[in-house]
Amino acid sequence: MIKFAQRLENTSEYYFSKKLREVKAMNEQGQKVLNLGVGSPDLSPPELVFSAFTQAMAKPKAFQYQSYLGIDELRESVASFYQKTYQVNLESTSEILPLMGSKEGIMLVSMAFLNPGDEVLIPQPGYPTYQAVTQLLEAQPKFYSLSEDLDWHPDLEEIRKMDLSKVKMMWINYPNMPTGAKANRKKLQALIDFALANNIILVNDNPYSMILTEDYFSIFQLKNASKIALELNSLSKSFNLAGCRVGFLTGNSLFIDAVLKVKTNMDSGMFYPIQKVAAQVLQLEENWFKQLNITYQKRRELIWEIADELNLTYLKNTVGLFVWAKVSAGQKASAVANELLYEAQVFVTPGKVFGDLNDEFLRFSLCVDKKQITEALRRIKQINVKHENL
Amino acid sequence: MIKFAQRLENTSEYYFSKKLREVKAMNEQGQKVLNLGVGSPDLSPPELVFSAFTQAMAKPKAFQYQSYLGIDELRESVASFYQKTYQVNLESTSEILPLMGSKEGIMLVSMAFLNPGDEVLIPQPGYPTYQAVTQLLEAQPKFYSLSEDLDWHPDLEEIRKMDLSKVKMMWINYPNMPTGAKANRKKLQALIDFALANNIILVNDNPYSMILTEDYFSIFQLKNASKIALELNSLSKSFNLAGCRVGFLTGNSLFIDAVLKVKTNMDSGMFYPIQKVAAQVLQLEENWFKQLNITYQKRRELIWEIADELNLTYLKNTVGLFVWAKVSAGQKASAVANELLYEAQVFVTPGKVFGDLNDEFLRFSLCVDKKQITEALRRIKQINVKHENL
Repeated sequence: MIKFAQRLENTSEYYFSKKLREVKAMNEQGQKVLNLGVGSPDLSPPELVFSAFTQAMAKPKAFQYQSYLGIDELRESVASFYQKTYQVNLESTSEILPLMGSKEGIMLVSMAFLNPGDEVLIPQPGYPTYQAVTQLLEAQPKFYSLSEDLDWHPDLEEIRKMDLSKVKMMWINYPNMPTGAKANRKKLQALIDFALANNIILVNDNPYSMILTEDYFSIFQLKNASKIALELNSLSKSFNLAGCRVGFLTGNSLFIDAVLKVKTNMDSGMFYPIQKVAAQVLQLEENWFKQLNITYQKRRELIWEIADELNLTYLKNTVGLFVWAKVSAGQKASAVANELLYEAQVFVTPGKVFGDLNDEFLRFSLCVDKKQITEALRRIKQINVKHENL
Repeated sequence: MIKFAQRLENTSEYYFSKKLREVKAMNEQGQKVLNLGVGSPDLSPPELVFSAFTQAMAKPKAFQYQSYLGIDELRESVASFYQKTYQVNLESTSEILPLMGSKEGIMLVSMAFLNPGDEVLIPQPGYPTYQAVTQLLEAQPKFYSLSEDLDWHPDLEEIRKMDLSKVKMMWINYPNMPTGAKANRKKLQALIDFALANNIILVNDNPYSMILTEDYFSIFQLKNASKIALELNSLSKSFNLAGCRVGFLTGNSLFIDAVLKVKTNMDSGMFYPIQKVAAQVLQLEENWFKQLNITYQKRRELIWEIADELNLTYLKNTVGLFVWAKVSAGQKASAVANELLYEAQVFVTPGKVFGDLNDEFLRFSLCVDKKQITEALRRIKQINVKHENL
């Protein structure tokens, strides 16, 4: 009998991979499930993407291996995007590493810094991949709670009380997913100081910085951040290019070099046309984001109606692609999610997927068009009427 | 001071990544280095790729996240390619996993099976990534030698004498890189039996099966292979799509499931247009390979002239994208490679990159057009004349 690696014992298939197979099966049985669960941008990418792709494909070396470092034009474009958007200066030759999406980056960064047995501070609620990758490397997740009371920011007092002697790295993610919390610069500056004092690498996973906000945040806006922090960024949400797998890592050149060392041994450079497209869309005028956010704003208002219909509470002053809404006292969010899926054929993500231990929250995605959200609202009203009549 | 992971201590930047930066710098200084070192196919991909890409991009979900499993059409196309090419039956829903290139697959497979401390049989000479990935996971490389005497196949007698108690996995690669050796089915059948008897996963890395041969080999042509083997395959070399990052893993569904579990936690599905293109080119008629191989055959004859000029010895009955040639007794291949680079501005890979411990071999790539090979030949003749005149 062949035994698999121990790391698989703590690792289940990624939640959405499994759940979406169930949804697919329901659809194949003729049920029309409305998917409000997944943050996969459904809007079209910028128009220039199509012509940029076609032009890039025609280049003589378009289909050949690319450098691990990415093409100069892409790294320069990232540098100018950081300057223009976040007022952050980065050295394009040494402080930027293009990646196949920021999910890949979570593994690369973890491999560069973590030994088996090292501990990693991971937010709850938070993106499940932080935990999964940590466990794949046989490092130990050490969860810290985010709570409403602190605007979903780390409770530094709480964290200082923990045994930090084995903690090597800390994941944060502002603007925050799933809660939609905006970055609070004062609180995060205190976190930088804490990380420096305790020699803990702070990694900000930052794919939502352009969505439903005009206050664009990067960790490198904070003092001394470059000494201790890395930032993952992505074109998936900002430019509706999730399927292209393109993102990048930014940080000081020593850290970037270590990650590059891992990367060169694991994969290859990105497809040239994807790099060219990425370089070009990063130079789009701000109007691109304004238009995008008008659409998301309208959708969000409709999702709020659904939340009202379900008697959920939520904050309006949030950022990013999701509505994070709380069920009434005594209700279980996962039970509500199941009811919505099996009675109304509406797929919504239960917050506990993100480590919401009290099972109090639901996450609604804004990556669904108005027509479908309206239909979801109609179905939910219908089951509410049915329940009232029982 | 932030310490990097221990795994980086054994890991250097991938040889070609570093060396190609040196070549780039030489070129920037105005030297026109002819690159005969790298196996990056320079020929155009099949013509249909361009229209297939453009059509796929126009689909509504072209830029959205894709399933980890790959689209059905791609998995079915791989199954029919295996049937048609290798006469091997695979179940498209469970025995095939599309990947972002087979290099990515080396990491995914290793993560699925290796614990820190496990040992891995790795060929010398062989692709450096087997060793690098093994060390990144803190497993132990255990090298086995390939020698000319055994047609560059594993010496099972030698291997049986080793302490195999901790060996979990074994890498093989037939058709072989760098030596160009064809798969010897009888010898490899004995290896399957050995792997089964010793409970060692056998992974055949098989990107060169279509190049300069008409005897297409897959490990699954051998008896009982599906019980103990996995096979990585790639479109990089067969269809000149190296830059697209597309390949696949084949094997029994239990093994594939384990690798999928790793994959869903590390990355995402491939870009939809790349999957569509891959599905379509896999269905090309055999004539595609015939034409491709006519070109490589002509180039190889010219490389043989270079080898003759350098007094190297080599086999003619080989497969794949390289000529593997031996220096004269008393010469060091790496010294010859340096001389070629610095005196003739011709970059050739010293065999020791692949673990050729005696430093006896050079590897020439066929991914260079006739004009450049002819120019390399001219330059090499010139330095030979110069040396004779000294």
